[in-house]
Amino acid sequence: MSIKTSTPESTRTGPRASPPRVDAERLWSRLMAMAEIGATPKGGCNRQALTDLDREGRQLFRRWAESAGCTLREDAIGNLFARRSGRTAAPAVLIGSHLDTQPTGGKFDGVYGVLGGLEVLETLNDRGIETQRPVELAVWCNEEGCRFPAAMMGSAVWAGRMPLESAYALTDRGGASVRGELERLGIDVRRPLERQPLAAALELHIEQGPVLEQQSRRIGIVTGVQHMSRHEVIVIGQEAHAGPTPMAMRRDPIRVLADALPALYALTAAHGPQAKFTVGIIETQPGSPNTVPGRLRFTVDLRHPERERYRALRAEAERLVREAIARHGLGGDIQCVWEAPGVEFDPTCIAAVRRAAAALELPALEMVSGAGHDSVNVAAVAPTAMIFIPCAQGLSHNEAESASAADVADGANVLLHAVLELAQAQTGG
Amino acid sequence: MSIKTSTPESTRTGPRASPPRVDAERLWSRLMAMAEIGATPKGGCNRQALTDLDREGRQLFRRWAESAGCTLREDAIGNLFARRSGRTAAPAVLIGSHLDTQPTGGKFDGVYGVLGGLEVLETLNDRGIETQRPVELAVWCNEEGCRFPAAMMGSAVWAGRMPLESAYALTDRGGASVRGELERLGIDVRRPLERQPLAAALELHIEQGPVLEQQSRRIGIVTGVQHMSRHEVIVIGQEAHAGPTPMAMRRDPIRVLADALPALYALTAAHGPQAKFTVGIIETQPGSPNTVPGRLRFTVDLRHPERERYRALRAEAERLVREAIARHGLGGDIQCVWEAPGVEFDPTCIAAVRRAAAALELPALEMVSGAGHDSVNVAAVAPTAMIFIPCAQGLSHNEAESASAADVADGANVLLHAVLELAQAQTGG
Repeated sequence: MSIKTSTPESTRTGPRASPPRVDAERLWSRLMAMAEIGATPKGGCNRQALTDLDREGRQLFRRWAESAGCTLREDAIGNLFARRSGRTAAPAVLIGSHLDTQPTGGKFDGVYGVLGGLEVLETLNDRGIETQRPVELAVWCNEEGCRFPAAMMGSAVWAGRMPLESAYALTDRGGASVRGELERLGIDVRRPLERQPLAAALELHIEQGPVLEQQSRRIGIVTGVQHMSRHEVIVIGQEAHAGPTPMAMRRDPIRVLADALPALYALTAAHGPQAKFTVGIIETQPGSPNTVPGRLRFTVDLRHPERERYRALRAEAERLVREAIARHGLGGDIQCVWEAPGVEFDPTCIAAVRRAAAALELPALEMVSGAGHDSVNVAAVAPTAMIFIPCAQGLSHNEAESASAADVADGANVLLHAVLELAQAQTGG
Repeated sequence: MSIKTSTPESTRTGPRASPPRVDAERLWSRLMAMAEIGATPKGGCNRQALTDLDREGRQLFRRWAESAGCTLREDAIGNLFARRSGRTAAPAVLIGSHLDTQPTGGKFDGVYGVLGGLEVLETLNDRGIETQRPVELAVWCNEEGCRFPAAMMGSAVWAGRMPLESAYALTDRGGASVRGELERLGIDVRRPLERQPLAAALELHIEQGPVLEQQSRRIGIVTGVQHMSRHEVIVIGQEAHAGPTPMAMRRDPIRVLADALPALYALTAAHGPQAKFTVGIIETQPGSPNTVPGRLRFTVDLRHPERERYRALRAEAERLVREAIARHGLGGDIQCVWEAPGVEFDPTCIAAVRRAAAALELPALEMVSGAGHDSVNVAAVAPTAMIFIPCAQGLSHNEAESASAADVADGANVLLHAVLELAQAQTGG
């Protein structure tokens, strides 16, 4: 192959070449334009998967991606891919995230990864940069799992980790199915599911936690995702009137909370600062101030980045809860309702992110993601890493979710430089 | 006054006089007939105050009371009084309870006291017994306080412990007011509230606890009602994603439960077997398994029959909760939302119940009521006591509430004999 006259800028060397930077204003204005679709009065976003608003958001994205010269493809589970060709047809570098939000979600969770990815493609266009590998931008369908109860659904089906028919059969509270809603939105469910070969994958995201902000770092180099599981505890006692029933004659399920909660906090502390234990829901039935509850339900969320620590934490937590139930002669059990094994991201992809942050002189922290992301599924089939930026007070899944314009631009620039490295690499093809 | 030829039976003496007994079958069949009004599929009763079903129940009671020769009077807050004249117009002996139920209530709570009272009047009629004092049967309005949020409303207004206008202004969840519902049911709210003078008052009730059953006693001689209060605890933390937020950076309101619950159970035990502590409601917001709650709400119900013990229990419980909130740097507080001082019933009334149980050779237990009753209000203005019978497994405020036909008859016989003593007593008039 002969070298063309229009030598791509990024292959130039020397002090004269200004390193490429994204258009921070375009990226920010697109984030704000997308946030208007499903905007909530409190400044957040409600654009749940496969709703009319989700379709509207996807259509806006489509128009932007088409005018950026991308080739668009939608698969049978509603994932959307925008492809920018490379010099070769070698396996692509995948970037992207999701456009759906929580019912009281923010402007950045997921959307930033998609529009930050689009901004990378636009910048490559603006600078006339050709990459060896194609760069593909993914919009994964139903990452949040709030309307249809399977988080990271589209990427799981794409990666072969969830059967297509299981995803189609999921229904929302109103009884609408994923299949029905895909069809209603004009997505062709008869087309085959194809998984394109990938050389590497990167996902840009807000941290959704407070660590970067607290440690004054601008970039998180995400080396993996912690092990995590969700458990449901049901305790069955006996409803009784709070007045006449002596304590010794009660079968009071709250006794399990009194025993298990302090023990679980102590257990978590014993497993070090990376162990996490959350009780997000507690419910009592019948829920009357002067009735000993007949039934208690609470959730337990356990996380740890190290596999052995995580396993011990989970086993000990289950034992503690079961012992407390037995100690008070109550019924019920703790049950694991969801478990996601941790992921260690790919060293080459991590190194590309690390070099990009260093080249841009951004103070970075190597960290493990506490939350699940589509990248967990992508990592099962392709070398993958993630890039985090700080978000204000660590707030996410919250209408007050926010990120600074400077961080938003920096994260996209790190993505741009990591993509340049991974997509420019000799393809061997 | 000359002695009439038809000497009342109860004034006879000697072995020939068979002691009066209630008609157990009539009483039982009336209990079952009343239970059909608002019957629930699970065998309970839903006849909430001032509903159409409540009116239907009151009308059925009216027909029975009228055919028993009683004079009926309804007051401006919907209390209903059925009077059986005595030989004199001296202050009456009051019996009775309430006909309204919980939404998932049973067949006996309240209704038993009303229909057991009616059965006493019927038996006096059947046996041609004249009493010196009139005997009056009360049906108190809205004892349950579940539809309109003030328990023992009618008796509180009658006793002058709650302003009439405050009661009128209470609304249900649909916005209907007590005043509006009284008018809708044809109860004349313009008539003056009159509190008739009373010599004594007795209330017959199921225990609503397990003590009589567990101790194989047939009659509870109720000497008072324990001190009680209801508290609401609100704890304000900070919503955070369960995954990325390290334990040390959280403001997790569940920490207060972990600290306070074991401390509160231990505190209660330290105040002896009569101390009672109940957490009936626990709620978390936003209530998502992978979000540290931003807000926790729970209720605390505290009871003790001894005034000093109760006061110490309440003060220490409040201190424990406040310390736990402060220890974790959280917001919120514990607030007392309702407090009912304990009542010591009248020794003369208690003695009449004691003698009646002994005369009927029923194994009895002197006990304190754990629950509030209309008698708490009546006791503020007249000598009062209560009679309990066992209920199966102590269940009440429950569709499965049940009492045996034998206990139902025995309780009514104890009421009958205590009324005979109190209403026969020389009036001095």
